[in-house]
Amino acid sequence: MGEPGPEPAARGRELAEGALAGDRRATARLLTAIENRTPVAEAALRILYPQAGQAHIVGITGPPGSGKSTLVSALIANVREAGRPVAVIAVDPSSPITGGALLGDRVRMQAHAGDRDVFIRSMAARGHAGGLAAATGAAAAVLDACGFDLILIETVGTGQSEVEVAAAADTTVVLEAPEMGDEVQAIKAGLLEVADIVVVNKGDRPGAQRTAAQLRAMLVAIAPRPGDGDERPRPKRPEVLLTTASTSVGVPELLAVLDRHRPTDHDSGSAAARLARAEAQVWAIAGDRVRAQLHDDRHREATEATLRAVADHELDPYAAADRLLGDVQ
Amino acid sequence: MGEPGPEPAARGRELAEGALAGDRRATARLLTAIENRTPVAEAALRILYPQAGQAHIVGITGPPGSGKSTLVSALIANVREAGRPVAVIAVDPSSPITGGALLGDRVRMQAHAGDRDVFIRSMAARGHAGGLAAATGAAAAVLDACGFDLILIETVGTGQSEVEVAAAADTTVVLEAPEMGDEVQAIKAGLLEVADIVVVNKGDRPGAQRTAAQLRAMLVAIAPRPGDGDERPRPKRPEVLLTTASTSVGVPELLAVLDRHRPTDHDSGSAAARLARAEAQVWAIAGDRVRAQLHDDRHREATEATLRAVADHELDPYAAADRLLGDVQ
Repeated sequence: MGEPGPEPAARGRELAEGALAGDRRATARLLTAIENRTPVAEAALRILYPQAGQAHIVGITGPPGSGKSTLVSALIANVREAGRPVAVIAVDPSSPITGGALLGDRVRMQAHAGDRDVFIRSMAARGHAGGLAAATGAAAAVLDACGFDLILIETVGTGQSEVEVAAAADTTVVLEAPEMGDEVQAIKAGLLEVADIVVVNKGDRPGAQRTAAQLRAMLVAIAPRPGDGDERPRPKRPEVLLTTASTSVGVPELLAVLDRHRPTDHDSGSAAARLARAEAQVWAIAGDRVRAQLHDDRHREATEATLRAVADHELDPYAAADRLLGDVQ
Repeated sequence: MGEPGPEPAARGRELAEGALAGDRRATARLLTAIENRTPVAEAALRILYPQAGQAHIVGITGPPGSGKSTLVSALIANVREAGRPVAVIAVDPSSPITGGALLGDRVRMQAHAGDRDVFIRSMAARGHAGGLAAATGAAAAVLDACGFDLILIETVGTGQSEVEVAAAADTTVVLEAPEMGDEVQAIKAGLLEVADIVVVNKGDRPGAQRTAAQLRAMLVAIAPRPGDGDERPRPKRPEVLLTTASTSVGVPELLAVLDRHRPTDHDSGSAAARLARAEAQVWAIAGDRVRAQLHDDRHREATEATLRAVADHELDPYAAADRLLGDVQ
């Protein structure tokens, strides 16, 4: 099934080699190709993927208003003081259609625009569900191969896709702000389940200590019990830290904790995260392959008729799936 | 590939017949089976799906704090005054693991607990991405077959999955509250693109009229241009309405607008929504089938080795996808 043709293969190789040589425009173009799931992206990733696997991939997620971008900015500044390169993938859930960016965030990040060892990129998910986790994983692999040893993936932590993205990082930081409203409180429970580190940001606000205490209590309550279906081994309960990202208070401490969470080869937790990341990519690609085959010249007409029959309730979706898979198997 | 065995088939038929006969406990059990993607769900849906296709499926989405649940409650009260049955699927993005519910919302909805023509159900997405849109579509088909002619799907409108769920409704209502913060403003743009009707809730607050005016201006700015990849035909620009859900002000007017949006057989917009719903279900089921086959006794070992090789960066995910698909094709 469809490997890239000779032209996309050549272009993919060119971009991959450029990216590896430190050409940031080549890297940026590659990430665009990944977002658009083009054959060029496939060709390049086939070259780069085997060279990745060294970076620490950190998911940073939390509800709107918890200060994710400010914290990411503070983390970048602290990491750069130590001379380490750092990349940020800001996952933008706002627009499946135009890929519109969270403009305010992007503007704040331009503080680092002159520094070539800081790479910041926002990504939108195009196409079918599952694309977001796959595209993010592929983008992280590219940046990893390019030598960024810390890769921050920033997501708004309120949706299913975002939880999946967060869960596929080596280490997941969940941000909260003190005293948020009821609905946001409720959303926390789901996010806390994927947290390796919980950060109460805006730590200088009244109630920050109380929020941290509440979160610690919640973390005890939701600690995974054997056999409850959570197969991700977690060595210990998440730490709860306080930061005030706007003034960098607590940020060096957060970085130190992150470094302790850096995956090692014999760490079953990060092995599970890497497997989840690999699976998300492989299943998304496999789905793309099958869909592409079902829409090629030989199958398109039959596929569209089958899907229309389901839309018209003349055929149930299980029978339709079996029929379509029968066509290509 | 796996149709349900004799036992799940019998149990599925029993639940489907019970649901059709008006047994609400059977309906509730069916929705649980759908959430868990069991063979019983498949057996029942194969019976019920052909009987669906009459209901008006309305997505109601918006950021946390915009008052979705209050509006849904007010809509229920108004619809029930007219004697029509109504069902609500509250999509809960908070927890992929425990399926935790937004407790506050559920409590508010218990106001209608005694009325058998009101069916309220929260759903969480389990398993892989894409499951949410598929499960919601299947649940809507069940409720549709059971005679609920208005089905409200309530989602928190901040994630990719939620946008997909909203886009698969016949009519999508996007809620906003007056004067929300900057980040939330930015999220609006993506949501507005899928809106058929925009509602500024909390209309009695200062700034509500101004927010409505801003939204109307944004809707002009993002109006789809030919060839920009948005293939969903939209007959006209979304209307912007004001409601104060807590006192039902504006809610009868919203219902009247909703009724005008009720899909007809020759309406290309709702045909596209129905096709999107069908596709989401069929692709999710096809993906499940392929994954199940790759994890059966014959393939499991090879599949796990391939995925591990990707996780270890020894194999790129494209080669892995091709290898896995080659195993089953």
